[in-house]
Amino acid sequence: MYPEPETEIPDIADIHLARARIDHWTRLTPVLSDPGLNQQLGCDLYCKCENLQRTGAFKFRGASNAISSLRENGIDGDVATHSSGNHGAALALAASLDNRKAHVVMPENSVPMKIDSVRRYGGIIHFCAPTQESREDELAKLVQEGKIPVPPYDHADIIAGQGTAALELIQEIPSLDQVITPVGGGGLISGTAIAVAGTGQQVFGVEPEGAADTVASLDRGERVKSWSPDTIADGLRAIVGESNFTIIRKEVTRVFTVSDEDIRRAMFLFWLELRLVIEPSSATVIAAIRNHPEIFAGKKVGAIISGGNIDPGDWKSMTNFD
Amino acid sequence: MYPEPETEIPDIADIHLARARIDHWTRLTPVLSDPGLNQQLGCDLYCKCENLQRTGAFKFRGASNAISSLRENGIDGDVATHSSGNHGAALALAASLDNRKAHVVMPENSVPMKIDSVRRYGGIIHFCAPTQESREDELAKLVQEGKIPVPPYDHADIIAGQGTAALELIQEIPSLDQVITPVGGGGLISGTAIAVAGTGQQVFGVEPEGAADTVASLDRGERVKSWSPDTIADGLRAIVGESNFTIIRKEVTRVFTVSDEDIRRAMFLFWLELRLVIEPSSATVIAAIRNHPEIFAGKKVGAIISGGNIDPGDWKSMTNFD
Repeated sequence: MYPEPETEIPDIADIHLARARIDHWTRLTPVLSDPGLNQQLGCDLYCKCENLQRTGAFKFRGASNAISSLRENGIDGDVATHSSGNHGAALALAASLDNRKAHVVMPENSVPMKIDSVRRYGGIIHFCAPTQESREDELAKLVQEGKIPVPPYDHADIIAGQGTAALELIQEIPSLDQVITPVGGGGLISGTAIAVAGTGQQVFGVEPEGAADTVASLDRGERVKSWSPDTIADGLRAIVGESNFTIIRKEVTRVFTVSDEDIRRAMFLFWLELRLVIEPSSATVIAAIRNHPEIFAGKKVGAIISGGNIDPGDWKSMTNFD
Repeated sequence: MYPEPETEIPDIADIHLARARIDHWTRLTPVLSDPGLNQQLGCDLYCKCENLQRTGAFKFRGASNAISSLRENGIDGDVATHSSGNHGAALALAASLDNRKAHVVMPENSVPMKIDSVRRYGGIIHFCAPTQESREDELAKLVQEGKIPVPPYDHADIIAGQGTAALELIQEIPSLDQVITPVGGGGLISGTAIAVAGTGQQVFGVEPEGAADTVASLDRGERVKSWSPDTIADGLRAIVGESNFTIIRKEVTRVFTVSDEDIRRAMFLFWLELRLVIEPSSATVIAAIRNHPEIFAGKKVGAIISGGNIDPGDWKSMTNFD
């Protein structure tokens, strides 16, 4: 098994440790700001471009930290996970850099280029039906065969790894008022919240309306455990994790929801102003800023652009407005 | 008229001066390197991502330097140029930042998104037939009306402006062995050659086979003045300029040619490894490195990725291989 964390909730020291561990594998991604985009959004936006991270998403940070942690603990062997794509590709690359194989359970309806990507980084794919149950059953089989399961978000090592993106961001732009990230399983936002805790910066999250389980969970005061996601943001369809939810409840000021239409417009705006093709999940943060001038106007906002894994043909279809 | 340069050939001091002038307008673009790409190309490649420059191309550097130079010389008034797109959009933005209007003569068959881009930055478009003669006639009319013509590449201010990209690149990665850029009118490569002269770094250029006038000019020992370009690299269809050719002849080690098929493959590879959609002109440098391991293998190579102004739908069509 992947080692149980010493503590469920990592702290800032864990994020610094993660950074030191993974620094030689990860890319120090650029932080971009654009006057045209700022003018349209009414704030000073600093985009931490994790779409330009290796494997095209921040997920490589958490996966690298998990694999490094296994190595430090002297645990050899192949790893396994289930993923709609980005965590799978990230784990495949991180595993191969440590001379392991990664087995990735993927729903049959995963985005084709994400399937290709997992393969390209050396991952071994096991297809399953597109349900949470089928994913977990298939993974359980692999674990029974002796593969080490690496959780996608609900683990201190993963959270600490994902937090390194925000750590780099605030080191480069220390004067931010606010930081905003997308919310899927909650690995990125919980790592981000811990990275900036104590700096006085507010942390915001964004979910697609069709995968707003975290907002529902916050409203009810307990974690919603079932949700049928319906959104173009394929990277945000997961249910928020247990430890992730605990951190979000404590540290995050607010989680917004945005519509798929908002997301598609934001994808187009981002390309128009920054010439970057980003996946729908990433565009949620731009959409939320656009929808909430009462929160963001006049502020210095750091946004984590989570990934760029979208086929440009699909991007084109999604942003073909009348 | 736009002022005649004090000297036809700028020197390194002119590039430093340009940088100081335009620094507050231009973006310090990221330099990206990727282990996967390096492995495929057999060299250590450092990509200066001018596709992420404002207006999506390095052209904004030269245009900003030209407008700043007008301002310093106390020359007011609207400017004019002819352009297939990138120089036009760059001049439109630079002019608007100095409270001027830019009139841009564009061939009717220009790429639609480049037309949109010129408009978006406030440029006033004058369409013409897609011939060099028609472009010049239309521009001459605007000049007669009192607009100040800003040359696209054959001027010391433009060359010095474009050279600031290489200056930033070698300041960030001082240990490069070689630098490579695309060649169209020659503004970028001549500025680059001057920026790195004296560092011991070799400078290479690349042209599409269907617009290889510079290679033909080098072969003949004099500048070819007429060429019917036929290439998907719409940004490289211009004939090399007079002063640009003088600099290339003196400072550039070699200019390669690459086929449109090479370019399309390189565009796809760049996206696969770096998740960046780049225009065909930019991909020429990747194609040349791929074709010439005898020159680049084992070297530290700096590549100027010149622009990212391509509709993702067109990108998809160009890279749809069997």
